[in-house]
Amino acid sequence: MSDTAVQTDDELRALRRDLHRHPEPAWCEFYTTARLIEELRARDVDAIHYGREIHAAEKRLNLPEEATRTEWLDRAREAGADEEILNEIGESFTGAVAVVDRGSGPTIALRVDIDALPITEADDADHHPAAEGFRSENEGYMHACGHDAHATIGLGVLDAILESDFSGTFKLIFQPSEEQISGGKPMADSGIIDDVDYLLALHIGLDHPSGQVVAGIDDFLAVTQFRAEFAGESAHAGARPESGANAVQAMAAAVQNLYSIPRHSEGATRVNAGRVGGGTADNIVPEHAFIKGEVRGETTKLMAYMWDHAQRVIESAAEMHACEADIQMLGEAPSAESDQALVDIVGEVAGRTAGVDDVLDRDSLGGSEDATFLMQHVQNQGGLAAYVGVGTDHPGGHHTPTFDVEERDIAVAIDVLSASIREIAASDSL
Amino acid sequence: MSDTAVQTDDELRALRRDLHRHPEPAWCEFYTTARLIEELRARDVDAIHYGREIHAAEKRLNLPEEATRTEWLDRAREAGADEEILNEIGESFTGAVAVVDRGSGPTIALRVDIDALPITEADDADHHPAAEGFRSENEGYMHACGHDAHATIGLGVLDAILESDFSGTFKLIFQPSEEQISGGKPMADSGIIDDVDYLLALHIGLDHPSGQVVAGIDDFLAVTQFRAEFAGESAHAGARPESGANAVQAMAAAVQNLYSIPRHSEGATRVNAGRVGGGTADNIVPEHAFIKGEVRGETTKLMAYMWDHAQRVIESAAEMHACEADIQMLGEAPSAESDQALVDIVGEVAGRTAGVDDVLDRDSLGGSEDATFLMQHVQNQGGLAAYVGVGTDHPGGHHTPTFDVEERDIAVAIDVLSASIREIAASDSL
Amino acid sequence: MSDTAVQTDDELRALRRDLHRHPEPAWCEFYTTARLIEELRARDVDAIHYGREIHAAEKRLNLPEEATRTEWLDRAREAGADEEILNEIGESFTGAVAVVDRGSGPTIALRVDIDALPITEADDADHHPAAEGFRSENEGYMHACGHDAHATIGLGVLDAILESDFSGTFKLIFQPSEEQISGGKPMADSGIIDDVDYLLALHIGLDHPSGQVVAGIDDFLAVTQFRAEFAGESAHAGARPESGANAVQAMAAAVQNLYSIPRHSEGATRVNAGRVGGGTADNIVPEHAFIKGEVRGETTKLMAYMWDHAQRVIESAAEMHACEADIQMLGEAPSAESDQALVDIVGEVAGRTAGVDDVLDRDSLGGSEDATFLMQHVQNQGGLAAYVGVGTDHPGGHHTPTFDVEERDIAVAIDVLSASIREIAASDSL
Amino acid sequence: MSDTAVQTDDELRALRRDLHRHPEPAWCEFYTTARLIEELRARDVDAIHYGREIHAAEKRLNLPEEATRTEWLDRAREAGADEEILNEIGESFTGAVAVVDRGSGPTIALRVDIDALPITEADDADHHPAAEGFRSENEGYMHACGHDAHATIGLGVLDAILESDFSGTFKLIFQPSEEQISGGKPMADSGIIDDVDYLLALHIGLDHPSGQVVAGIDDFLAVTQFRAEFAGESAHAGARPESGANAVQAMAAAVQNLYSIPRHSEGATRVNAGRVGGGTADNIVPEHAFIKGEVRGETTKLMAYMWDHAQRVIESAAEMHACEADIQMLGEAPSAESDQALVDIVGEVAGRTAGVDDVLDRDSLGGSEDATFLMQHVQNQGGLAAYVGVGTDHPGGHHTPTFDVEERDIAVAIDVLSASIREIAASDSL
Repeated sequence: MSDTAVQTDDELRALRRDLHRHPEPAWCEFYTTARLIEELRARDVDAIHYGREIHAAEKRLNLPEEATRTEWLDRAREAGADEEILNEIGESFTGAVAVVDRGSGPTIALRVDIDALPITEADDADHHPAAEGFRSENEGYMHACGHDAHATIGLGVLDAILESDFSGTFKLIFQPSEEQISGGKPMADSGIIDDVDYLLALHIGLDHPSGQVVAGIDDFLAVTQFRAEFAGESAHAGARPESGANAVQAMAAAVQNLYSIPRHSEGATRVNAGRVGGGTADNIVPEHAFIKGEVRGETTKLMAYMWDHAQRVIESAAEMHACEADIQMLGEAPSAESDQALVDIVGEVAGRTAGVDDVLDRDSLGGSEDATFLMQHVQNQGGLAAYVGVGTDHPGGHHTPTFDVEERDIAVAIDVLSASIREIAASDSL
Repeated sequence: MSDTAVQTDDELRALRRDLHRHPEPAWCEFYTTARLIEELRARDVDAIHYGREIHAAEKRLNLPEEATRTEWLDRAREAGADEEILNEIGESFTGAVAVVDRGSGPTIALRVDIDALPITEADDADHHPAAEGFRSENEGYMHACGHDAHATIGLGVLDAILESDFSGTFKLIFQPSEEQISGGKPMADSGIIDDVDYLLALHIGLDHPSGQVVAGIDDFLAVTQFRAEFAGESAHAGARPESGANAVQAMAAAVQNLYSIPRHSEGATRVNAGRVGGGTADNIVPEHAFIKGEVRGETTKLMAYMWDHAQRVIESAAEMHACEADIQMLGEAPSAESDQALVDIVGEVAGRTAGVDDVLDRDSLGGSEDATFLMQHVQNQGGLAAYVGVGTDHPGGHHTPTFDVEERDIAVAIDVLSASIREIAASDSL
Repeated sequence: MSDTAVQTDDELRALRRDLHRHPEPAWCEFYTTARLIEELRARDVDAIHYGREIHAAEKRLNLPEEATRTEWLDRAREAGADEEILNEIGESFTGAVAVVDRGSGPTIALRVDIDALPITEADDADHHPAAEGFRSENEGYMHACGHDAHATIGLGVLDAILESDFSGTFKLIFQPSEEQISGGKPMADSGIIDDVDYLLALHIGLDHPSGQVVAGIDDFLAVTQFRAEFAGESAHAGARPESGANAVQAMAAAVQNLYSIPRHSEGATRVNAGRVGGGTADNIVPEHAFIKGEVRGETTKLMAYMWDHAQRVIESAAEMHACEADIQMLGEAPSAESDQALVDIVGEVAGRTAGVDDVLDRDSLGGSEDATFLMQHVQNQGGLAAYVGVGTDHPGGHHTPTFDVEERDIAVAIDVLSASIREIAASDSL
Repeated sequence: MSDTAVQTDDELRALRRDLHRHPEPAWCEFYTTARLIEELRARDVDAIHYGREIHAAEKRLNLPEEATRTEWLDRAREAGADEEILNEIGESFTGAVAVVDRGSGPTIALRVDIDALPITEADDADHHPAAEGFRSENEGYMHACGHDAHATIGLGVLDAILESDFSGTFKLIFQPSEEQISGGKPMADSGIIDDVDYLLALHIGLDHPSGQVVAGIDDFLAVTQFRAEFAGESAHAGARPESGANAVQAMAAAVQNLYSIPRHSEGATRVNAGRVGGGTADNIVPEHAFIKGEVRGETTKLMAYMWDHAQRVIESAAEMHACEADIQMLGEAPSAESDQALVDIVGEVAGRTAGVDDVLDRDSLGGSEDATFLMQHVQNQGGLAAYVGVGTDHPGGHHTPTFDVEERDIAVAIDVLSASIREIAASDSL
């Protein structure tokens, strides 16, 4: 026996492709937010929240510069985004929350993320978006992690809830800036999920094939992302090398020693100097350099171990070359675990969903996610949370130019999640 | 007794300030070249050469990308540059040569350079160009090494020669791309100085105060500028750190070990990783990184020692991190010495020039200059060459945002050089 | 109900203290081996094997130099070791195997290790061996990992088997050079365990308190130990720095980059440059340097990943500084798992042994052990193996100057192991 | 016309070979000192000073450990050194001063050094000392810089002065610990040269062939020698890598960054990590490491620049890896210049000395020498000093196993120096 699968109708497919054509980086999801709000307005929802009210403003880290924001606002405008909405969200208050109130019952939230990546999308004939004409129009940016599908699934779940006999409150959360892991905390601390009893979050793909569902994804690596600036002193590299303080040397010493922070016996740790730069000209001793990077740990404690060491390495490397270091935390996320009660429900529901061949109880992410801030917030106030994985055959890996999702798996995800939400509401015992 | 000093007339000052307002980087001196050609056309010269005929085209290294060139051509056009000239020089065939033929006598050349630097000019009230309204209009670029003055002095010397009883041939050479030391070689190998018997080159400032002249600057550091690209393999830094090949680690290892190439007992050596970068995102193992840098030596041999070692360090650093290195030479210049016979003449002339208080026979540059290619070319065919320094009180150091020249020293330079050229012609014994 | 505990009699305590007083490093266990053989000779065993017959000679790695061997042989002689035995084992054929044949039944082996460490033993009043007068007499060396207790336990188990109704064959294996993980492979490949059906190995302590037994220790890190020699070229550091090839720079570059081999997503990895050195005098560019170190992995595959990378790092670091690298593998051990059938028996037996309060089914070692070669050998030929941990309150950590074992736990270990061996024989179903 | 050359008689040759057979390292020149004092006692000198009176005791740096001193005292005793002398000098108060008072005239000193190097001497048939049977008997140590010849020359000069009509005071100074540049300062500050008007010092060889004399050696590199200890925290490298503080990583980071201290535009600088080490065992995170090294500069200022940077690098590298650094200065020497008045006299004398074909006025040392402390001391109190080079064909370079001096050049050196001293006395005008 299986639930009847909702077929991804043309409308949802069109939405997913439209979002795919308009990938926007973290905190610049202006077109995306405006488009999603318009979709919400077309539906019978009880409230739509966006702008300042859905963010603890000062918790937003790693915001883009004015010029960048302006550029993406211009693009959004050109792509037809609603001017009134842009006014509300234009200072990087992106994302949205829809509320559906259907009588007594628990408050259940679904969180989906909406931002894209600075990756140039493949343009080969065998890359489906290219072949079908919905390749990224924002050259250099790409939905290479499936957040276009996530947002679409969110709306599909909303539709399914609206059409169902669901009793309780449903909150659909479109979260910005997951890729910079800086969107979860300001939303978690904004108050908008203070009333949430159950939270589901979702990821598609993750190397799971079409037909496979993971009821509870775990082992999120706790993470801190940072930017370290090294400030030295410039000098003519030929005439006065001794009078400089070489920020590039400091940065290089830091990079070498960051990767060599001792491994930890209690579990996995990570470090990456993901983007670095420095200097101005061949013949000038560089007075400035930077590292944008991250540290992770299998637990928040292990991440803290790496973060402590990383800061000491950076500061010592600067000192070593007579430079100053300025370290800023740009984003962070704790580790988290999915609650077994929800994992049981999702697993059971998935097992009887059409299109699902294989249900894994648990699996590891091996990456980081700031959905953990929302999960933690709900769990800390006594609620339950789970992070669900829905497989899809993706030709290229996540964060690569050939990533794509199998569109029919969008319907599978909608079925699994909407049925799970109804089941959670039905079996509420909190 | 002293020669009568030519006063820098209003026209020359205006020219210098106009050039100062329009700084252009190496190989993009489009406005500058067009402006100088117009000045030459207004004078009684026998020939004006520019475009392809003054360059050995394939010897031009480190040319800008199409897009950059187009941008600077647009700026030149907006600033009023002659379209016909831009057509001739638009593919980075910048610079110009003027010929004055005044009967029998030797061929004497003066070489001046014309390019600017990627430095943002100071905007303080006590920065003269800012106070007087001729600060750079190309934000982020600046004449921070006095080449605006050099070009102006070149024209002033031309005027002085034209007004004098000079007998022989005078060639005024406006050389592009000195800052990238890639303009000297293509001009030296183009044939335009094959007939030159005597060559003078010039630099203003160099920490010598107003009133001081150095008859023969020596100890040019031989130099090679390079770009090294490191190509690795990207990977998700959290989920699959082992499957990447980290180009930033390779670059950092190279930087650390470049600076530690052993010092050489035979003389000064230099190395600088002047600009570096790499990576794309915090959570991606960087698959690409680069170093733009230079090595120098007090002699060409010492430079070669550094260059050999630098290449080995870069290649080994790449290999160490399973990356590939691609090293390109972007520019070079040999070391050179000023000939004593010319140094004697310039020193004697300077000693009787108004505005000159102090004449040094010789001094070291401590930097590099691709005028050495032209000097070497002339010397190799039996001619003589010297590099003259004319002091000026400059508030900020060379290549800093507050660099400026004392404008009355332009006249001093014109007097010293034009009188020296006449004296060289008079005493020709080659 | 519990089995009657054998009390560690005075003889065994005296033996343990005698071994403790004579710690010998890997492959130099001359006194220890001779002493143990004499103990065996005093017992009713069917065969005693030692010397060349118990080693695949060419598999012995990391043997000491002639001079070192001679020195330890002299010490053994002075301490009273039997000359005839020393003759047999003097070329580092240390260790011994005793065979007890008691009729039909399986062949069961117990492997204990016998070597000590280059650590200076504490001499404080609160260090039990110092207080009781059995502190190390080989200054600079110490039984800081309890192998003196292991050898004693082996003999105690032998005694218990001899006194019991055990039916089958019992082999007691005294293995040398565990600390250098180079004694396991030559014994495993010598043929002496080809007939073994069941193998137990043992470690005391490991941060488990007195009264605790771990029935099956797992997660041995696979390990490779190596020595890398860097050969460069010396030069006077003041007069001719450029003519050297600096082996210390090569070594330092290797160290920095060894620790920064990327972490692996599939499990724990380790690297350590445990001992390094190089150079001769302040004013000489060092022509020689070395690293003695190790890499480990949670699995043999992960260790191989580290070993591949380590070799590339070392070779590239040498090349970078114009040196040659010579890398030698000094020891290795695979990872291994304890078989559940044996873990069940040991756990059950331990649960009813006097002096045991707490039985853990499984625990991780987090270190390496070359007992894994013997375990693997037995398992590969269809047998079963387990590695048992017996807790003891040890004041200082393993490999520290204050390590010691609580002597009454020797009796506990003898009881658990001898009863387990009898139980294994009784329930043999292979 | 030339002076009559004193032939190196058999006695001096025998002395040189005896010293060569007994090379002793810095501060352990016990046999050498005793042997030289006996030579002095056999001559008609007015005073012989040795022991505590010729050293400012507390200025002696880098003294050997008790055990090392005892070992070398034992060797000296075995080689027949006078016990009474050993008592006086046994706490590393090595060296000696002889005074010859011959009436009115200036006080002129000759300083020669007497220590050897930790180098194993060649044993090939074509190595003269090996072939002739006077190869080093202290295996592992060697007179590889000619100090055996220097001491012999000193005595030869003394003989020549004694036989001459010299009027004035002559002081012959045998200085210890030149190779560790720590013997010059304690002698300079002891008072023994407070009355010296003129000082000559001497080196043989220095890549100058037999027959060549350098009247004034210059460009001594100022130097500081140091020892840096890194103290971290040990840990089991497999089980608890995170709980260590890795002193070898700190040391490696320091080495890499020491060599990359920026070159200085004002002149030559040097740095060398001449000897390094650290750690105890493969599987222990190293808690200790050290660097013995040196920095140099063409001037004392340049050396100070290097020393400042080196200390910062070392301290930052320690901090980076959570270690403590302890830096000790072991020796130092300033730069110095030879006074022209003395250079003129030596050059003139050398020009008329038999066996001298070629006199260079000046040449650079390119190394360091703590004779500069004595030179500086004399110059500071108004005297004059010069450092003379006497060429000799030496098969191997200085500080290599095949170094040797051509013995007949010892006579040349004696002639040049003794004649110069008489000439200085004769032309005294201070």
